[in-house]
Amino acid sequence: MISIEQALEQIMARLPECRSTWCALDNALGHVLAEDVQSDIDSPPYDKSLVDGYAVIADDITLDITLSVLEDVLAGQIPTQTIQPGTAIQIMTGAPLPEGASAVVMIEQTSRNQQDVTIHQETIKSETNIMRQATSLSKGETVLSAGKFIRPIEVGILAEIGCTKVPVYQQPKLAIISTGDELVEATKTPQAGQIRNSNGPLLQALATSHGADAHSLGIGVDNFEALSDLVATGLESDILILSGGVSAGVKDLVPAVLRQHGVEQVFHKLNLKPGKPLWFGIFSSGKHQTMVFGLPGNPVSSLVCFLLFVAPVISKLTGKTSACLRETTASLKTDFQQRGDRPTYFPAQLTEHGGNRYVTPLAWKGSADQQTLSKANALAFFQAGNQLYQTGEEITVFEIPS
Amino acid sequence: MISIEQALEQIMARLPECRSTWCALDNALGHVLAEDVQSDIDSPPYDKSLVDGYAVIADDITLDITLSVLEDVLAGQIPTQTIQPGTAIQIMTGAPLPEGASAVVMIEQTSRNQQDVTIHQETIKSETNIMRQATSLSKGETVLSAGKFIRPIEVGILAEIGCTKVPVYQQPKLAIISTGDELVEATKTPQAGQIRNSNGPLLQALATSHGADAHSLGIGVDNFEALSDLVATGLESDILILSGGVSAGVKDLVPAVLRQHGVEQVFHKLNLKPGKPLWFGIFSSGKHQTMVFGLPGNPVSSLVCFLLFVAPVISKLTGKTSACLRETTASLKTDFQQRGDRPTYFPAQLTEHGGNRYVTPLAWKGSADQQTLSKANALAFFQAGNQLYQTGEEITVFEIPS
Repeated sequence: MISIEQALEQIMARLPECRSTWCALDNALGHVLAEDVQSDIDSPPYDKSLVDGYAVIADDITLDITLSVLEDVLAGQIPTQTIQPGTAIQIMTGAPLPEGASAVVMIEQTSRNQQDVTIHQETIKSETNIMRQATSLSKGETVLSAGKFIRPIEVGILAEIGCTKVPVYQQPKLAIISTGDELVEATKTPQAGQIRNSNGPLLQALATSHGADAHSLGIGVDNFEALSDLVATGLESDILILSGGVSAGVKDLVPAVLRQHGVEQVFHKLNLKPGKPLWFGIFSSGKHQTMVFGLPGNPVSSLVCFLLFVAPVISKLTGKTSACLRETTASLKTDFQQRGDRPTYFPAQLTEHGGNRYVTPLAWKGSADQQTLSKANALAFFQAGNQLYQTGEEITVFEIPS
Repeated sequence: MISIEQALEQIMARLPECRSTWCALDNALGHVLAEDVQSDIDSPPYDKSLVDGYAVIADDITLDITLSVLEDVLAGQIPTQTIQPGTAIQIMTGAPLPEGASAVVMIEQTSRNQQDVTIHQETIKSETNIMRQATSLSKGETVLSAGKFIRPIEVGILAEIGCTKVPVYQQPKLAIISTGDELVEATKTPQAGQIRNSNGPLLQALATSHGADAHSLGIGVDNFEALSDLVATGLESDILILSGGVSAGVKDLVPAVLRQHGVEQVFHKLNLKPGKPLWFGIFSSGKHQTMVFGLPGNPVSSLVCFLLFVAPVISKLTGKTSACLRETTASLKTDFQQRGDRPTYFPAQLTEHGGNRYVTPLAWKGSADQQTLSKANALAFFQAGNQLYQTGEEITVFEIPS
């Protein structure tokens, strides 16, 4: 069986090229820039005032000097006069600086009497309260580079430089099929032998929160033809996740159906707990390629396999560079008995106290125990091999992104 | 002038009650539960097998014993037979346990020959690979409590318990008006004396990313009637943000227009840099109430005021309990000369290296310098008063959420 690292390497080796697209500025938040963007303007576009006040010649200013006001320039207006010694022009924050001015006195430091203004400060340095043209941005300059994650701050910058059609990496389309005759949709009341499909919504939410354009194809019953039809639809996406049907049971049709569609198996099973039955393959049709993941059918396995193997794929395709699982270390709050020959990711609660991190593996009642999982904000990592990890021991922990 | 703490206190004192609503499970991600939710089922709904294999009587098992297979139970089917000594029933992961069974042997440990199965393990403990009914959830039990933030894990749990109409706190409606005759929309090329409206998109993205239902009402020109009409529309929202028009300039109509609409001023100006001109008031009309923020017109002031004062309001209304700005400490990477009598939030870059945090105040070219701001992931905090903070000094830093 291959290791976690080998599995990830084999998956990432099959990653297609990132595709770029354009999106409206209103929708750009959370995307990643696919191209450098340049400013089409100088910013500020002109020498401007940083305050509401009076543009003056700095050398003119002495305490309580009275200057003659040439004009009052309102927002959106342009000064028409040139400041001469002994004169001032009233301007507003952001307004173009009049010719001849070398500083702006804040309005709070002045008093106005008809066409005169008196300045209540002793001196003012040249350039005070002025921002010169292109101080912030020059026309043609690259303002944000390809690869930049678009936060609210970047939305503001893109607006400033007029980039309203934003070049971004495309969200991969991701389809989810939950397999199993025992499944009913969440809206239904399960009858004897049935359980609700919780994996579908879990995986859809995980994929959405990681930046995929995720949609569920519903439940695939354990029937070759029916499942095959759903898979045919799923293979139109960039990523297809099948949940369940990949372990050693009698009716595990998933690998067979995928083979029938010509999906090339890259690996099946790896040395991981939970998540051993993971299946991964590639479907190619002309230029289109689909990465196909067969995830184990229980929610914790799904979560772990998604975070370890699917999340990095979505991340990479959407141009993100940050790790999907933030690795840290923490001190164990209880003993933990590790058993078996597989490296283990165990649902855990990570807490911080006095600058120290602590981790409590949760009292997890088995693989379908989602309620306990809701207390988890991390996965505690234990290496393969029987070993008692003792309270206080520092272990590796991965934070589950919320 | 009031302090930052007083301002926040006065704002939070006027917070209306949180409102709850229902949303579809597909849209529940990122919301907060407004009510406890109970399970309508036992989970598992029956004693079930955790593996694909053979249900047996544990005491029967000795190495290479052959048992008679009573039936093969497929997914979605129910066992019809009761296990007797010397017999087994083949079942799949998740299938109901047959009567009489006390353990399940994994299929990998068996070999099948027509109606017989041979078990290749020496013993099996009672309860092995069985999950008993209601181990994970009991019918009527509160599974998730009011106040719980809905991550993908919680989406899965809600699906499992059939909660497809989810009780969540309502997103506040938030309207944004960018004021100023000098503003043009981002799609336009600014002419002399004009700049693009970048504050509107910045604030809309900030509000959206903090969980508000945010929409822009566009640009409010410096004309009493026109601005008054826009404000009338804005006052239909739960939160109205006006950007610009609150400092001491000639045409600062915002407070006047708000007064005309009967908006009660709670405070105007506070001891903060940047952000001193912040205006806050309340509009009440019958049972409806609008919190009105007049934010200073430059992007950095907008950002700081939003994060300090608007974000906590949205957070509280949407039921979130986590802090909007995560406080930490970091070691200064350069000297910083603090000047003036206002506590200062300075755009900065926070980095981590070898477990230590470092902070670099950015070479910020003034309040409109958004490009430098794009390098910021934190706000460095400096107390009021002239002081040289030296390289290596530990200071307070607030992480800007992305």
